[in-house]
Amino acid sequence: MSVIAEYNIETQHYYGVVADEIDLCESDGSARIPMILKRLTGYGRSRFVEYMGWKLQGPLIILTCNEDMIPSNPVGYLLFDTFLTRFQDGPLTVVARLGEIFYRDEVAEASQNTTFVIHPLINVRRILPLGKKGKLIHAHPDFWLLSVYHSGYQSLMKHFKQSYKQRFCPLDVNYSSNDIEVETVEYDTKVSLNATNKPLSFTKHACKLKGHSLEKGISIRMLIYADKLIASDINLLFGLDVTLVQPINGELDRRDALDVVTNTFF
Amino acid sequence: MSVIAEYNIETQHYYGVVADEIDLCESDGSARIPMILKRLTGYGRSRFVEYMGWKLQGPLIILTCNEDMIPSNPVGYLLFDTFLTRFQDGPLTVVARLGEIFYRDEVAEASQNTTFVIHPLINVRRILPLGKKGKLIHAHPDFWLLSVYHSGYQSLMKHFKQSYKQRFCPLDVNYSSNDIEVETVEYDTKVSLNATNKPLSFTKHACKLKGHSLEKGISIRMLIYADKLIASDINLLFGLDVTLVQPINGELDRRDALDVVTNTFF
Amino acid sequence: MSVIAEYNIETQHYYGVVADEIDLCESDGSARIPMILKRLTGYGRSRFVEYMGWKLQGPLIILTCNEDMIPSNPVGYLLFDTFLTRFQDGPLTVVARLGEIFYRDEVAEASQNTTFVIHPLINVRRILPLGKKGKLIHAHPDFWLLSVYHSGYQSLMKHFKQSYKQRFCPLDVNYSSNDIEVETVEYDTKVSLNATNKPLSFTKHACKLKGHSLEKGISIRMLIYADKLIASDINLLFGLDVTLVQPINGELDRRDALDVVTNTFF
Amino acid sequence: MSVIAEYNIETQHYYGVVADEIDLCESDGSARIPMILKRLTGYGRSRFVEYMGWKLQGPLIILTCNEDMIPSNPVGYLLFDTFLTRFQDGPLTVVARLGEIFYRDEVAEASQNTTFVIHPLINVRRILPLGKKGKLIHAHPDFWLLSVYHSGYQSLMKHFKQSYKQRFCPLDVNYSSNDIEVETVEYDTKVSLNATNKPLSFTKHACKLKGHSLEKGISIRMLIYADKLIASDINLLFGLDVTLVQPINGELDRRDALDVVTNTFF
Amino acid sequence: MSVIAEYNIETQHYYGVVADEIDLCESDGSARIPMILKRLTGYGRSRFVEYMGWKLQGPLIILTCNEDMIPSNPVGYLLFDTFLTRFQDGPLTVVARLGEIFYRDEVAEASQNTTFVIHPLINVRRILPLGKKGKLIHAHPDFWLLSVYHSGYQSLMKHFKQSYKQRFCPLDVNYSSNDIEVETVEYDTKVSLNATNKPLSFTKHACKLKGHSLEKGISIRMLIYADKLIASDINLLFGLDVTLVQPINGELDRRDALDVVTNTFF
Amino acid sequence: MSVIAEYNIETQHYYGVVADEIDLCESDGSARIPMILKRLTGYGRSRFVEYMGWKLQGPLIILTCNEDMIPSNPVGYLLFDTFLTRFQDGPLTVVARLGEIFYRDEVAEASQNTTFVIHPLINVRRILPLGKKGKLIHAHPDFWLLSVYHSGYQSLMKHFKQSYKQRFCPLDVNYSSNDIEVETVEYDTKVSLNATNKPLSFTKHACKLKGHSLEKGISIRMLIYADKLIASDINLLFGLDVTLVQPINGELDRRDALDVVTNTFF
Repeated sequence: MSVIAEYNIETQHYYGVVADEIDLCESDGSARIPMILKRLTGYGRSRFVEYMGWKLQGPLIILTCNEDMIPSNPVGYLLFDTFLTRFQDGPLTVVARLGEIFYRDEVAEASQNTTFVIHPLINVRRILPLGKKGKLIHAHPDFWLLSVYHSGYQSLMKHFKQSYKQRFCPLDVNYSSNDIEVETVEYDTKVSLNATNKPLSFTKHACKLKGHSLEKGISIRMLIYADKLIASDINLLFGLDVTLVQPINGELDRRDALDVVTNTFF
Repeated sequence: MSVIAEYNIETQHYYGVVADEIDLCESDGSARIPMILKRLTGYGRSRFVEYMGWKLQGPLIILTCNEDMIPSNPVGYLLFDTFLTRFQDGPLTVVARLGEIFYRDEVAEASQNTTFVIHPLINVRRILPLGKKGKLIHAHPDFWLLSVYHSGYQSLMKHFKQSYKQRFCPLDVNYSSNDIEVETVEYDTKVSLNATNKPLSFTKHACKLKGHSLEKGISIRMLIYADKLIASDINLLFGLDVTLVQPINGELDRRDALDVVTNTFF
Repeated sequence: MSVIAEYNIETQHYYGVVADEIDLCESDGSARIPMILKRLTGYGRSRFVEYMGWKLQGPLIILTCNEDMIPSNPVGYLLFDTFLTRFQDGPLTVVARLGEIFYRDEVAEASQNTTFVIHPLINVRRILPLGKKGKLIHAHPDFWLLSVYHSGYQSLMKHFKQSYKQRFCPLDVNYSSNDIEVETVEYDTKVSLNATNKPLSFTKHACKLKGHSLEKGISIRMLIYADKLIASDINLLFGLDVTLVQPINGELDRRDALDVVTNTFF
Repeated sequence: MSVIAEYNIETQHYYGVVADEIDLCESDGSARIPMILKRLTGYGRSRFVEYMGWKLQGPLIILTCNEDMIPSNPVGYLLFDTFLTRFQDGPLTVVARLGEIFYRDEVAEASQNTTFVIHPLINVRRILPLGKKGKLIHAHPDFWLLSVYHSGYQSLMKHFKQSYKQRFCPLDVNYSSNDIEVETVEYDTKVSLNATNKPLSFTKHACKLKGHSLEKGISIRMLIYADKLIASDINLLFGLDVTLVQPINGELDRRDALDVVTNTFF
Repeated sequence: MSVIAEYNIETQHYYGVVADEIDLCESDGSARIPMILKRLTGYGRSRFVEYMGWKLQGPLIILTCNEDMIPSNPVGYLLFDTFLTRFQDGPLTVVARLGEIFYRDEVAEASQNTTFVIHPLINVRRILPLGKKGKLIHAHPDFWLLSVYHSGYQSLMKHFKQSYKQRFCPLDVNYSSNDIEVETVEYDTKVSLNATNKPLSFTKHACKLKGHSLEKGISIRMLIYADKLIASDINLLFGLDVTLVQPINGELDRRDALDVVTNTFF
Repeated sequence: MSVIAEYNIETQHYYGVVADEIDLCESDGSARIPMILKRLTGYGRSRFVEYMGWKLQGPLIILTCNEDMIPSNPVGYLLFDTFLTRFQDGPLTVVARLGEIFYRDEVAEASQNTTFVIHPLINVRRILPLGKKGKLIHAHPDFWLLSVYHSGYQSLMKHFKQSYKQRFCPLDVNYSSNDIEVETVEYDTKVSLNATNKPLSFTKHACKLKGHSLEKGISIRMLIYADKLIASDINLLFGLDVTLVQPINGELDRRDALDVVTNTFF
């Protein structure tokens, strides 16, 4: 319990609902159906997961996947302590024992062997064999698995095996409305809308202009950056350039994109 | 014995017999012929193995294979304990000593070197040399090896060497009947059929429609997910979409598949 | 000696002599000429080696090779024990010291660096340097090296370097006669021939039919499996299918092969 | 604090401002927006970062990235100490705890898995899970991430994933003016301009001549080298050759470049 | 000294001189010029090195190279002993300290990084830095390096860098005369020539027949094997087949080669 | 200090100055400008570096680079000692602390990650972060970096990144004059010129004949080998063949080259 305590989400932060995502997440969670959330980066993936952690009152243990991970990362390590070897539970093992939410971020990056160790836990038997300890864990009834990935990597998921994809209930959340975006930025930056509505109104234009001069859309994260930066003494056009234009436009498209910014704001 | 105890399967759960699979498994098991079970994912592989573990009264020690496994995973590790090094038996060694069922899941994923360590155990001499311990184990008369893999990977098995395939008696279990599927879902979800018969009837249609709009069949696992989700307050069409359509259909086929769902249920 | 004791082969089991293999093995063994045995899998490689171990009264220490082996596997490990580091002899070192038979199984799978550590032991000086221990072992006069591989991998052996192949006296054992096969099955299964002669007579037909419908021959191991399975209550045709047909025939050839089985037995 | 103390930048050294780089850096830093600085090698990247460390009064912990780094390099190691295992915080963990500037040099070289461990720290939750310790760190409010790379590797950055680039506010600093270059060299070499203005005036010419005979521009670092070397008794033309011509010209272009040097200085 | 003692070559065995190889080896050895011996496998490489070790009265420390070696193999390991870490000298370090012959076998197989650690020892300064110990060894005046490889790998040597090849005085020993071959076999097998001259006379024929039916020549090692085997009760033609024909002829050439054997001996 | 003592160069050996190399090295060294020396192998690279070590009175710590090196090789290791873990400084760390010459031999072979750890030490801040120790070292004012590589690998250097090459003052030393070569050989071999002038005069001819029959030039190292060998009783032509002809000529060119030798000397 002391282990779990620090993973509790105790504060409700603002989250703007897009569609049915909260209902589905609650239903999946209470039925312990493993879930895989697909959403564009910068549009509130972490925010949504944190919100669900608060709503479901489930401590949330995160494991950010990468392709060099080994099974010991989720399952645990053998450590050497005062004259003996002890097994330190990894995050997956902690959750399997104590029964909370195991949140795998960036699952599209996970190495196969860290994916396979999870299978017995989401099979009908819900077990986790600890080979290095010679023990078998029966998952706590509350154990639930929530996976998330950037939908920009959707093509990667096509390479996942059928036996993997079938184990997860997918949730594909669309772009937020502009209203949600405004409210999210306001909540996060705690800056009056007098300052923030400019980048936000720009966003509305930019969305329409996609395909013309802006290679990719502007995410909520970028709007928050812009908002925070504009709140300082920095030159306004320069601030918009480094937060909204440069991160998503190549050298060639940058001039056009800056023209759009200039025409929109000045 | 205390090691083995936790691996006992003490409860009989429902298992719907498809053909001769139980007879063959019993005969193979009593003759100690290594067996390799091929079955589609989501159609009850783990359920069948668990059932056989209960029927044969054999503790079942599982090792989920992956391509990064090393021989120490099945055989065992050298650990450092109070001033000395001790060899901790891996799952294969435990089973070889105590004589129960060694259940290798996802064998089509196993690395070659974890496969070769098993050969001396299923040769005529039935031995297991523990190189790191400098010892030789003669397998317990009850030692039996049961391997399982997803038949979607059948092409992978073609790459297995002749000397490997020949060591196993294969068991290829077909699709279950709709009756078995209904009973399995009922048993697992403990929900009245009033709710569940809808997805099940849809399945019957979907099977006929294969090749038209649904890329792959709908497994029992997916039906259970659907059933559990529908039992909650979630929108019915949405619930069917995320459990029965999205996991097995690409972006392009999804609209067609959803039409099938709509026409079938509403 | 206590180390070696457990590797003694104390029982004479049945072995059916094919040609000159025992004479050559005895001559090579007494002259300490390293030997490499090539035989099809399932036709009695382990059985022959065990028999020779009994006949030569030499404890037999096995090392099953694989491509991920490192030199420490045959030579030995540094272990940490009560306040000091001790070198645990690997199987090759034990044999070099005490002078018995070192039996390398599946040598065609061995990594090159585990092959090179053996060279000084079969050179004129017959030494084994233990780099990690800073010691040099002069091989016991009785040290002898016996290597075995599945002749299905013969093409692999062509890639072995000239300096490697030249160090071994090769022994290529042909198929056994049907009489030997019958006797081997009888000995192993301890079942009356009334039951076993059916699969054996089938074998005689199958051998003639090679190229027509059966991709590869049926080995003794497969006959033993068939025999044991038929001794149970299993359906006869089903039992023959899983033991004699499926392991060596692809999906396409299986129907033809089953017809052969049916015509032969019923 | 004692850990951090040695990372304080206590002396203000000369830094010649090119454009808005200090304003943006201050604004980004106070808003904790992760920043990525792109500048040609040899034109004052380290100098600028050191200057900002002094100006923001933030201890600066550097991690020079390379493609062989593993997550333990930034996050920390398990060490064995008097009878127990202790976790030694890596530089990223120290900064996350104590809240200062984490300066990643040469980020274009970083391996992906050392990049992914940073993501949770620059997400909305600003956390760092220490898997090997079983702990979760909530970042200090002052934690700020500053990344730097040689703009000659700009093409490499194009391969960075969208979800990575979007997390950073970019800063692209142009060439310094000649005046700044003169002042930087003077400050660093502490040699009177009587000696240094020669290479500097050469630089002015060289800049104009780019594309004619000098493959790449001459950086401030090279001017400082030239200046220091000329201050010794070395032959002047030889000194200019090894510091200004050879490092950036191939064998073929060297003669032309030397002619430029000769014509300029003599 | 106690370390070195076991590496002394105390017995003079027969070695048949081919040309100037002993003179050159003695001259090189007394001048400490590193030497590289190229000779076909099976024609007495080890025999020659052992002979020189006896003649030069230099203990001979062997390291058989392979491509997976790491610098610790020749240089040494850090070991953990009663409460401290101690550096165990590897074979190269022992020789550098005590000043004897370091004999690298199969150098054409050596990994580059085990080759580079030797360079400082054969440069003008003759030093060996022990990085893990933080020490520098000045080579004993008697330190000498003798490298050997199978001349069948001569093409491999072409890939060695110029800076490597130039550091060694090469010695290329041709085929032995038939007289030497006879005497070597006699000495080794201690069998009367009545038995051995048959394979030897066959060799003379075989040499002339190269290109016709025998792919490669028959080495002294093979003749010794043949001789030892014929001394037993084995069938003569069979014995010649397995020792002289099979090891160096493919399946296709074997029949022709056997005809040659038959015509020659019977 | 006791660590450094053994790295002092206390004896002045003969070094024949080719051009300005000593002046440049002294100027670079006193200005602490990192230097990279390019010279053909066998023409006195180590000799020159040793000479400079003596002249600059700087202890010289060598690290011979190779592509498998890891950052721990130059920076240092964590060792386990009486109940605790201690960091043993690697050669780079020793030099950074105590302020002497760090001599990287064969830098063209270095792996990238051992190259990047040096960058902060030769930047304006001259620091070395010890990640595993959690400490930061400010380089001693006398720290100086001298890198050397065989100019035959010049093409390799072209692949070095601009940010790397620009950090070093290059020194390209030409072939020595024949006089220097004679004096070097005389000094090293301590043999009267009556014996040595023959190979030396041959060298003069060989230089003229390059392109005709001798693939590459004959280095001073080879002349010293020739000289030492001729001083023994070895056949003169044979001695010249193995020291001057074989190491640098392929099988095809060797006959021509030998003719040149014969015509020159006899």
